[in-house]
Parts: sequence; structure tokens; C-alpha cells
Amino acid sequence: MRMYDLINKKKNKEELTKEEIEFIVKGYTKGEIPDYQMSAFLMAVCLNKMSHEETANLTIAMAQSGDMLDLKAIHGVKVDKHSTGGVGDKTSLVLSPMVASLGVPVAKMSGRGLGHTGGTIDKLESIPGFSTSLSPEQFIENVNRIKMAIVGQTANLAPADKKIYALRDVTATVDNISLIASSIMSKKLASGSDVIVLDVKTGSGAFMKKYEDSLALAKEMVQIGTLAGRPTYAVITDMNQPLGRAVGNAIEVKEAIETLSGNGPEDLLEVSVTLASYMLLGAGRVSTPEEGRALLLETIKNGSALDKFAEFVSAQGGDIAFVYNPQLFKTASIRYEVKAPKGGYVQEIKTDEVGMASVVLGGGRVTKDSVIDLSVGIIIHKKLGDKVTKNEPIATLYANDDEKRKEAEKRILNAYVIGRAKPVKPPYIYSVVTKDGVTDLRQNH
Amino acid sequence: MRMYDLINKKKNKEELTKEEIEFIVKGYTKGEIPDYQMSAFLMAVCLNKMSHEETANLTIAMAQSGDMLDLKAIHGVKVDKHSTGGVGDKTSLVLSPMVASLGVPVAKMSGRGLGHTGGTIDKLESIPGFSTSLSPEQFIENVNRIKMAIVGQTANLAPADKKIYALRDVTATVDNISLIASSIMSKKLASGSDVIVLDVKTGSGAFMKKYEDSLALAKEMVQIGTLAGRPTYAVITDMNQPLGRAVGNAIEVKEAIETLSGNGPEDLLEVSVTLASYMLLGAGRVSTPEEGRALLLETIKNGSALDKFAEFVSAQGGDIAFVYNPQLFKTASIRYEVKAPKGGYVQEIKTDEVGMASVVLGGGRVTKDSVIDLSVGIIIHKKLGDKVTKNEPIATLYANDDEKRKEAEKRILNAYVIGRAKPVKPPYIYSVVTKDGVTDLRQNH
Repeated sequence: MRMYDLINKKKNKEELTKEEIEFIVKGYTKGEIPDYQMSAFLMAVCLNKMSHEETANLTIAMAQSGDMLDLKAIHGVKVDKHSTGGVGDKTSLVLSPMVASLGVPVAKMSGRGLGHTGGTIDKLESIPGFSTSLSPEQFIENVNRIKMAIVGQTANLAPADKKIYALRDVTATVDNISLIASSIMSKKLASGSDVIVLDVKTGSGAFMKKYEDSLALAKEMVQIGTLAGRPTYAVITDMNQPLGRAVGNAIEVKEAIETLSGNGPEDLLEVSVTLASYMLLGAGRVSTPEEGRALLLETIKNGSALDKFAEFVSAQGGDIAFVYNPQLFKTASIRYEVKAPKGGYVQEIKTDEVGMASVVLGGGRVTKDSVIDLSVGIIIHKKLGDKVTKNEPIATLYANDDEKRKEAEKRILNAYVIGRAKPVKPPYIYSVVTKDGVTDLRQNH
Repeated sequence: MRMYDLINKKKNKEELTKEEIEFIVKGYTKGEIPDYQMSAFLMAVCLNKMSHEETANLTIAMAQSGDMLDLKAIHGVKVDKHSTGGVGDKTSLVLSPMVASLGVPVAKMSGRGLGHTGGTIDKLESIPGFSTSLSPEQFIENVNRIKMAIVGQTANLAPADKKIYALRDVTATVDNISLIASSIMSKKLASGSDVIVLDVKTGSGAFMKKYEDSLALAKEMVQIGTLAGRPTYAVITDMNQPLGRAVGNAIEVKEAIETLSGNGPEDLLEVSVTLASYMLLGAGRVSTPEEGRALLLETIKNGSALDKFAEFVSAQGGDIAFVYNPQLFKTASIRYEVKAPKGGYVQEIKTDEVGMASVVLGGGRVTKDSVIDLSVGIIIHKKLGDKVTKNEPIATLYANDDEKRKEAEKRILNAYVIGRAKPVKPPYIYSVVTKDGVTDLRQNH
């Protein structure tokens, strides 16, 4: 087999076999296929597309390029929830204890934040004493005992994806649905869960700004999961504004705890419960999402979800005083209110700008090696469709540096579009994609 | 300007400006743009095409990447003839003295053979004493004095083309008309002639096997020449069989001399005269190709073309005894007749196989560093449409090694398709492409 011929095949719109795709992924990962051949191939993929089967084979080959985690030692059906990335997205912190408290194991490997989106691991580290690095044995033991553990990713998962992604990033071959879907799903397949629930964000703060693109990505990923033998559900959720009100690290954990206590924002609860209901469905714990929804809401009412969160924090060395008294979380020294430059309705929030405001404050990473400040962040007071009068606070900034605070303020002001007409609010949830098709879940809020 | 954005532009089917194309060619030639970005760009070009204007700008930028020869010191309009490469193609040797004898300067830089096609420089070196390396001053002096000089290419012409071609060769981005045309034309533009006559071969021994592809290439190259301010004519000629009967080096020079003496094969004379008539037209020496044709045929009849060839050989140190007594050319020691395996008509000749038979005998190069044997070659006895009886000689091999002779014989037998039906012979000339359009020149022979 020669890479030249395989590039030529894709250039001529022919379909590649499983063996040919494996040859490419293995050869490129090992360095036997040079960058210049791979980039020509990736451009041919971008322009001539890949079939669902090719995409699934590409994903499987990428997953197999590194460690394939084995979670067999964990009892029960392992369900992983993965988000394509959003601003203020603390759903993992909310839904994991809800699901775990219903007896379904949550064995989660999470990432750190990069760019305008945050990461669960960073957020959890704002709980004093909390450790995100457990030994593989301790991880499995915790899940079997209390049904829940969240650790940082240490295994060498899908190294092919890392290498291919870096090349796509410099050769204008990023925006192809097969390549995006395989990049996400290869890591999910390698991380060993039995069932995958995807939170596909759509809107101004998401990777995919348009609903149609998010839907296409969701369908492609569900196809991959299905062809790889891992039942996959994709819920398309709104990211035209931050989820909840808190954007940062410590303040997001606080908001998650408030939500588990029954005092959280409606959108965060709704998205968390919907995703969790498909996790329960995938695990076979319930037979309909509606049945799951009722059970999940009950875990909030009866306190079992909050207790589960405390149990989890304690098992990973964290101080549970913070769980029951979230006002203990230390926020940054400067507290500053961003005021509305004019009155009207919030018509639009450039959500990626809000995410970047948090990065500017020090709460996120510009490069992988950035050190982040867990105490900074933003509390959003005005959300889409809210009425606002001139000089009314639209957001509160928590900062430790006044220069950074000024820059973040600029970004927040730039993010808000205020106008006279009252806009139609976007739904929290758009639809769910399963192997059987798409179900519309839109309601007006 | 960033290469990333330019790749993205071509990926999105947008047209690149002259400045953007110059940025790419300069950056890549200097090594500032890495191979992996260039190959992604080339694949995007292959799949999304380039406009005529982009192609012309690419060609000009490639021409300007190295030396731009200045032939101003040569009096008169300088016309260059270039062939896309064929088997038995000795037209340069025939038409150059014809054109020069009519007072139009022929200042030719030629290449060596590579692969299944031969090169004029190799052929000329079979004349004892002949030198293909003149100083630039001597070259110009010769052309001004006797109107003709042919030398090997020593200048650094279009280094961008060399680098881009090498990359295309390993990334399956060879077969795009803009890239092929710019590769050929960049060297022509850099070599300084005022008018360009292209011999675009079509058929089994040509780079382009199909007439439509040859026509498309011819049109693209004429467009480039026109946009670059160099009047360009492209004559599409047949390469479904070797041109003339001789394939090799010394034996091709012999056949060229026979043709200049009025005893050459009809196809070789016809193709040479047609190309030369457009050279005269381009130089303004005649006002129609027909007028040129009459003058050219007269140079054969009255011996002035042969005398011009002798004058040229002498001026470059060659022994003119060989011009007037071509039987002096030494042929290889083994002379072997390939016999027809069955009777019938010659229906097809795989012409590239005949070219490879000559390479196998030692007459051509497999790599740039191969040393070639000027005395070997093939004389074709049976051409397309000829009747042949079983065991009748179809070709004579001139070899210096019996093993190589056997391998060449196999290739010749493989090249000939003999069958019962009498085929329609292809025309010698198909059409001519000028900036004003395509003129069909097909006649049956």
C-alpha cells in the first residue's frame, strides 16, 4: 500500500477501505507518512468528504492509535457524557452526582480548559484539598464504592488525533464534519465507556454557531458510535448565552452546588437533567427519558444528589464544608459591576467574548502552559430577552488585577447587544439525535 | 498575508490575487512556507481549479523565481519551439535549420531525455566533436552570425517549478491542467523568447493520452502566453506511434539529416514543417502558415536547410562529414530484427513502450544520473495501418548487450497490437490553438 495511491483515491472521490484508513492513521502516527502527504490527504477529505463508514473507520483507527482504557473492573454500564465545549458549562458537576445517586456509575476523565471554554478539572481544583489525580486502582475503587469519580486524563488517548489536529490547524483543514467528529469520538472510544451521551452545543459560544451544523455533527458522531458498537445519544443544547450565570472556576462550582441544592438557574438545571436522563436511558436504568427526568428531579428535592456530591468530594480529598457552605469559596479581591450603556432588551450575547473575558481575567488558558486563577470570573445578571435600563448592572466581574478587569469589561460591553425590540429567547434544548433519528425538543421559555 | 488564509481561500473556491500567488511562490521557493501547507494548497487547486488569470499569475511568479534570461542582444524576433515530449521526436533538429535558413533566429536551450522520451541535447552529442555547452556570449554570437545555436540549459530557470513539481510528484497533485501548464510555461517565459510555439503531443506515447486533454492543456498554455504578453501558438500533433522511424540518439540525428536532404519520413516532415510555419508566422517572417509552408519546403529542395544544419554543426565544433555522409554514424554492434508474431494490420502501437525499449537498450535515462549509449536504438518498420505477414520484421533493434536486446524485444512485441481489421490511421496534426481559437487541421493520411 502506498500513501500516494490513497491520496489519489480520495482525490478521485473513491471510498477508502478500513485497511487503507488504518494504514494512513498508523503510518502518520508513527511518522512513516510525512506531513506533506497527510495534509494533501486531509484537504482531499475536506473537499470530497468521507462516507459515514469511512468516518467511523477513521475514528476507530485513531482511537486504537494509543491506549484503549479497560473499565471492565467497574460494575454496571459505564456512561460517559461529553460536551463539545461551552461557556459557563458546569453540567458535569451537576449531573454526575444526580446520576451516581441513582446507582449508575460515573467514571469520568475530564480535560482542562483551553481557549474560551473552561474545563471540569480546573473547576474542581477550586475545592480545597480536592485531588484530580487518582491511581487507576483508586479511580476504579471509588466508582465501585460511591458510583462516582472524576480525574484528569493521564493515559495516552488517541495520539493520532493530537498529531492530525495539529496539522489541520495549520493547513486550513479544520472545518470538515468527518474530521471534527472523528477527533471528538476517537478519544471517547479510547476512554472505555459503554454508552456515550454527547452535549452538542450550538450558538455564538459554541464551536458550531449554526443549528444545522451542530445537527450534522451530532448525526455524524451518533453514526460513529453506532458503527463502533457504542450506543450514542447526542443532545443539541443552546450556547447563545452562558449556561447559568457563573463563568469562571470557583464561582461555577458554587453555582453547581446551588443547583444541586435546588437553587440553581433554570437553564443549567434543564440541560443537566435532560443530559442525565439520556445517561440513565443508555445505562438501562430507566426505559424513557421522561421516567429518568422524574427520578433525577427527585434527587435534588430529597438532597441525595447534593449528598452524593459531598461524598465524591470527600473521597477525592476535598473539604466538604465547601459543599454545604458554598459561601466559603473565596472570590477575587476586585468586585466590579459592568453597567448597561443604554436601556432596552438584551438581544444578543456574543458568548465566546464572555468566555474570553473570563480568560482575560486569568480564569482560562491562552496556551496549554498558562497558570490560571481559580478565584476570578463573571456573574451574568442579564440574559437574552431580559429588560435592562441604562446604567443597570449587566454583569459582575471578579478580578485580581485592575488592568485585566478593564480589558474584561470592554469584552463584556462588546458581547452585549441591547436594542429596543424584545427578542425571541432561544430554547434551552433543541433536539436529541439517536441511531433512530432526530427528535425535536424545542419549547419556548 | 498568511499562507493559512490563502489555502482557506482556495478551499472555499475563491480566486487568488496576483499578490497572493506571488506570496505563495516566493515563500515556498525560499522555504518560508512548509511543504505541508503547500501540498494542502496544491490539493485544493486540483479539486477547485484555478482561473486562467490565476494560472497565468502562477506561471509568471514561477518564471520570476529564478534567472530571467535576456536575449535582447540577439537581433530579430526570437521564437522558441517546445514539445511536451514524444518518442522519436527529432523535429527540433529538422525545423531549426529550416527556420534559421530563412533568416529567423533560433536560440534554443534544450533538455536531456528522461523516462521514455528523448532529449535534443543527447541526440546532438552523437555528432563527434559537437559541443552543447557554449558560453552565453558565444551562444549569442552564433545566433547573430548564423541564426542558430542549440545549447544545454545551464541557467537557474524557474526553481519554484522544480520544487513544486517534486512535491506534486509525491502528493498525487500532478494531473491538474493549471499546474501542468504553469510548469511548462514558467520555464519558457524565463528562457527569454519573444514568441512560443508549442508542440502538444497527444496519444499513447504522450503525457496526455486523450485529444480533449491535450486540447485543454494547449488552450491553457496559449492563455498563459497571451496574458504574459508572449504570443503563443500550440499545435496538437499525433503521438500514437513514434514520429518517423528512428528511436534512439545517433539514429535519430541520421533520420533528421535524411529529412533535411529530402528523404525523410512523411510524418516527421509534415509535423516539422507545420510547427516551423507557425514559428515563421510568430516571427512576422510570413503572414500565413501556408506562405511559410511553401518557403520551408523550398529550403529542403534547394539544400539551404541541410547547409544551415552543417553550418550550425561546424559552429559548435561538430564534424560536418557526418552531416553530408550520415552513414558515418556508428550504430551498435548487435543488429536484431523483431518479427511479427502473426499476420494482420498494425492496429495499435503502445508508443511509451517503444520509448521504454530504447531506454532498456541504454539509449535513455532512468534517473537523471544515468549514462546513456548514443549508438543504440530502434528502427520501426511497421507503422499504424501497415499490413504485416507472420515473421516479417516489424522493427530492428541496435543493441550492445544481448540481455538488454531481449528485454527490448519483449517490450516491442508488447507494444504492437496486430489484428485482422484495417484501422483508421490517426492524422499527423490535429489542430492549432491560437489566442483567437482552435483551427482543426485533421486530414486523413
